[in-house]
This record gives sequence, structure tokens and C-alpha cells, in this order.
Amino acid sequence: VPPDPPRAGELERIRRLTAHLPPGRGVIVGPGDDAAIVRPEDGADLAITTDAFLEARHFRREWCREAPGLARLATAVGRRLAAANLSDLAAMAAAPRWAVLSVGARAESEEWLEEVERALAAKLAESGAALVGGNLARTDGPEWYSLTLVGSVVRGRAWARAGARDGDLIAVTGAPGRAAAFGKRAPEYWADPDAAGPLHALGESWCDPASRVNVAAALAALGAVTAAIDLSDGLHGNLAQLCEAGGVGAEIDAASFGEDALIAGSGPLEELRYGPSDDYELLITVDAARRAACADAARRAGAPLTFAGRITDRAGDLTLRRADGTRAALPGRGYDHFAAP
Amino acid sequence: VPPDPPRAGELERIRRLTAHLPPGRGVIVGPGDDAAIVRPEDGADLAITTDAFLEARHFRREWCREAPGLARLATAVGRRLAAANLSDLAAMAAAPRWAVLSVGARAESEEWLEEVERALAAKLAESGAALVGGNLARTDGPEWYSLTLVGSVVRGRAWARAGARDGDLIAVTGAPGRAAAFGKRAPEYWADPDAAGPLHALGESWCDPASRVNVAAALAALGAVTAAIDLSDGLHGNLAQLCEAGGVGAEIDAASFGEDALIAGSGPLEELRYGPSDDYELLITVDAARRAACADAARRAGAPLTFAGRITDRAGDLTLRRADGTRAALPGRGYDHFAAP
Repeated sequence: VPPDPPRAGELERIRRLTAHLPPGRGVIVGPGDDAAIVRPEDGADLAITTDAFLEARHFRREWCREAPGLARLATAVGRRLAAANLSDLAAMAAAPRWAVLSVGARAESEEWLEEVERALAAKLAESGAALVGGNLARTDGPEWYSLTLVGSVVRGRAWARAGARDGDLIAVTGAPGRAAAFGKRAPEYWADPDAAGPLHALGESWCDPASRVNVAAALAALGAVTAAIDLSDGLHGNLAQLCEAGGVGAEIDAASFGEDALIAGSGPLEELRYGPSDDYELLITVDAARRAACADAARRAGAPLTFAGRITDRAGDLTLRRADGTRAALPGRGYDHFAAP
Repeated sequence: VPPDPPRAGELERIRRLTAHLPPGRGVIVGPGDDAAIVRPEDGADLAITTDAFLEARHFRREWCREAPGLARLATAVGRRLAAANLSDLAAMAAAPRWAVLSVGARAESEEWLEEVERALAAKLAESGAALVGGNLARTDGPEWYSLTLVGSVVRGRAWARAGARDGDLIAVTGAPGRAAAFGKRAPEYWADPDAAGPLHALGESWCDPASRVNVAAALAALGAVTAAIDLSDGLHGNLAQLCEAGGVGAEIDAASFGEDALIAGSGPLEELRYGPSDDYELLITVDAARRAACADAARRAGAPLTFAGRITDRAGDLTLRRADGTRAALPGRGYDHFAAP
């Protein structure tokens, strides 16, 4: 049983990597001691989430044949891992504050890992969070990066999955399905990431998902959101979870999303848009009477917000209303959590 | 890029596994939403730490040939991972509160993983902490378990590595070196974990390291501790870090520890006791005038506390004073954080 590896070196490295970033809010002791010490605001609740990225599951270095591409992929891995966790906190109406990163890395990948960490810390800092500690272990297998993010939320005001009511409107940030579309074309993108065109734009959106922390804060201030969930399994899958938690159903208007030039050509549109896709967008339900106020808040926060349908009282029933008025079961059954990978 | 796997199933499982445990203090929303929501005490600081266990590094399933042994090994992995994180918080004088577990597991190891999680949650609960969330990803490589633990500490009163002063006494909980000793005999132990004798006792102490959270709280209440570090790299290695942080040196009295029947026969005593060993004990420095009070507090908290030497003003100098009065460099150079594994 060899003792645990480069912990101190790792903490020192995080300190170096984050030295140029803004000092974390409420950070009393950063990386370098047995634990970080932080100071929460009095009267606030805390939101805690954790998410991990694994080599060969969430990305493949083999996509890239050359060093510049590899460095960009490392940046994307760091920024996407931060985005995955930021999105969880946004879906609770929490403001990101402090994060710790636990890594299993191969001995030879020091440069790659530094780039992942640098990108992750920068993405967190853009949303007001600081990397305050971590752990580095050596592995001979696939690498993995696991981030835990703690945020601050007004006491008793965290959004929940449960709470949607018959007649509430369903709203979605961004353009769901783009991560799934990119997944089908990743090798093509990484073969020439600078090539112009829709695939380039799709790749850029995959490499750096927009943080929805600001729009969540703006919407939370309105008090009009009745339920919220992070879109990381896919629209169908996450909508089903929200409906199950609330004992309600949902009807999605296919026409509400319009065209998406970035995903055209990557596969059947409905499968991409409603099926498994880790987009890190927000799916919320809002009081129908507050639609205009929510739209306005999202616009001011700079986030595209699509009103995509409404909640019904038909528990568990997920329907798609097509442009021609016909109705069908919502396509894109979510990821089956109990199926073999 | 397949979407992230059994998250919801995992959260549901954690909920089931922890259903019989005491409800976590300050837990507003447990597993099952995008993030856990917890309520810290007003006026407290938070301590955040993370530590991971990796298959083939921290344990080997090949040690066990039969199912009963494997279940015990899973229990040990869960309890040791909890202990590693509890020890980090104890070394900051923090009270453990909330934890999230991130796992990379192979598809076939569901039973094993449940046992790891059950043991981990139980060990945390014994020290007042609750498992409030997690993430499960599939891997085809070595399994890994990464725990993040958040604790509560009196504002401004967290112990630091820095702070030891010339003349302070060095005190250590438990019997350092036992984890190293066990490491040399793990296959022998697991071949027959029920065999009586010192190896059995050594194995039991490896499988379930004592939590030092209570003794840390008792010592913190005295206000006599000047610096503290978790003993997870080995006495020499961690003492060197504490001395570096404080700009001091240290002299260890070899006679202070006495014999340890549990590690006799596992290797050279001084190498085991001072060298790399993940014991999850506490190494503290205390005001020499408060020795009796500290000894008394530790006794009442049920933790063995050895006064093992004293801090000197010879920065970076680590000396061993042997029973015959001769002095030598402290043996057991710590784990080299920058060396290849």
C-alpha cells in the first residue's frame, strides 16, 4: 500500500495556477494545508455538487493528432467539467463559491493536466468561484477528473426539481442537442478545429458551454420559477425527472425551437434535440403570468431563453406537439440509468 | 460522447444506503436533486477537503480469494476513505458535516460498490457527517472513489500547519507506522483475516482507522495547539511539512513511542515508524506549559497521545534522539512528491 501521491505538489501547483486569478470570495486558507478554510455569508444555505469527467467516456485524446489540438482539448475538458458543476448550481439558484478538484492522472501527462486545471480554474473564476484545494493520485488506467463545487443560496430559496404545476410554462436556455450533435462529429472536428463553418461553431460551443449562473440569479430574483433542473442527460430525460418529481406531465411545442444550423446534418433533429445530450443548459418551469418578466430577465442576463411548452396534469405523460398540430410521444427517451453502458 | 451515466440511480442508491443512518445535521435537501442543500451554523467557517482511493494503489481485490474476504475489503476501503478525509478535518480542528462521493466503477462491481458506500456512510455518520450526494461514472479501468468532506470550524480558529514555535512539544495520536507495516503484509493478512495474533490486530487497525475528530475538538477547546497536520504521508514527511510551514526544526525522542508489538516483524522499526505510512493520525505541536492539560483532554477523548519530542529553532533540521542519547538525522525520508511512483 504505497502512501498517497503528489498531494502537496498538487496543492502547490493549484496555488501557482490560480495565482493570476482573482482571490476567491471568502477564502481564508487556500490550497496548501490539510483542508481549505472558507467563510460563508451568514444566513445563506450552501449547495454542494460533484461531477466527473473520464477519459474514453467524455473525451478521447486520440481525436487529436497534434500538440495544438491536444492543448485545446485539455482546455475544453477543464472548461466543460467546470460548466457541468456550474450548471448543477445554476439549477439550484446558487452562486458558485469554492471548488476542490480530485484527479487520477498518468505520470506522463503533467502538461496536459496543467492545462485542464488552468482552464477549469479560469472558467470557475468567470462565475465567481475559486479552486481552493485538490488531490492528485497516479493511475495507469484512464484518467479522471472529479470536481466538487460549493455555492451560496438565499436561505430556503433553492430551486428544486419538484414544484412544477399544471399550466406552468417550460423554458430552456440555449440550444439543446448540440452536445449530442457534436458527439457524432468529434473526430471530424478535431481533425481540423480551425476549419470554418457550422461544425466549427458547434465545436466551439462544445468546448466552452456558456455558464447559466447569471441568468439563474436574475430569474431567481423574480421569484417566478416553480421548478428547475440541469440539462445534462437530455431534454426528454431531464424533463421526465422534473415531471416525476412534481407528479405532472409536459407538452413540448416542436416549433418553439426553430431551426438550428449548428446541428443540421449531425443526425435526426428530434433525436438530437430531445435525446441524450450533456448540454449543461437550464430547464425551468415558470408561472405563466410571469412569462414576459422572465423573458426580459433572461435577455438582460444575455442568455437565450426558449419557451418550449407547458406543464400538464397528466402525470408522467411527455408529449410533443408538432408544427402541423399532431401530437406524439416526446422522442429521445433519456439515458437509461440502469442499462449497461 | 455518451452522456454521463447512472447519476440519478446513484443518488437514489445513496439515499437508500443512508436511510437507516441518523439524518444529517443541517441537511435541507439530500441526494436526488441537482445539488445538495445544507445549512451551516451562522458565524462558523467551513473546512473543505478531498481525498481519493484507487484500485491497485490503495488496495487490491486480488488480495482476497473469497467473497467474505472481499466484502471485508470493501468495508475497509469505505471506512479508510472516510478516515482519510476525517483526518484532514481533524487536523484543522473542524467538525465533519457533509460529504459527496464521486466514483468511477466497472459495470460488474455493483455489490462491491454498495458495500464501499455503506461502510463509508456509516464511518462518516459516527463522526457526525452525512453523505448528501454523489456521482457515479462507469470505467473500464481501475476503480476510484473520491470523497469531498465539508466541516464546520469556529470562525478564525482553524488549526494551521504553520505556527509551531521553538520549545513547543510535538505530540502524535495513535501508533505511526502501522499502515506501512500492514502494507508489507497485506496479502498474508487477507489470505486468512481471521487468524489470531499481531497481524490480525494490525489488519483490524488498517481496516478501520480510529477517527481523531473527537480528540481534535477536545484539544481545540484548550487553545494550546500551535500547529497541526494530518499524518498521511508518514511522520518524517508530515513533520517536515509542518516545520517548513513554521520555519522551525524538530527533535524526536525515539524512546517516547516504546515498543509496538503490531509492527514488530514487518520491517526495520524506524523505517516503518518515521517513513511513508498513511496512518490518518494527528501530528500537533502544543505549548509546553499545557502538556498535562493536553494529555488529560486526550485521555478523556479516548485517544492515545504520545509526546514525541520538541520543536527547535533549527529551521528544516529533523533530528532523532536515540535512547542512548546519540543524535542522528530522523530516518524515513517522506514520500517524494515529485518522484515517479
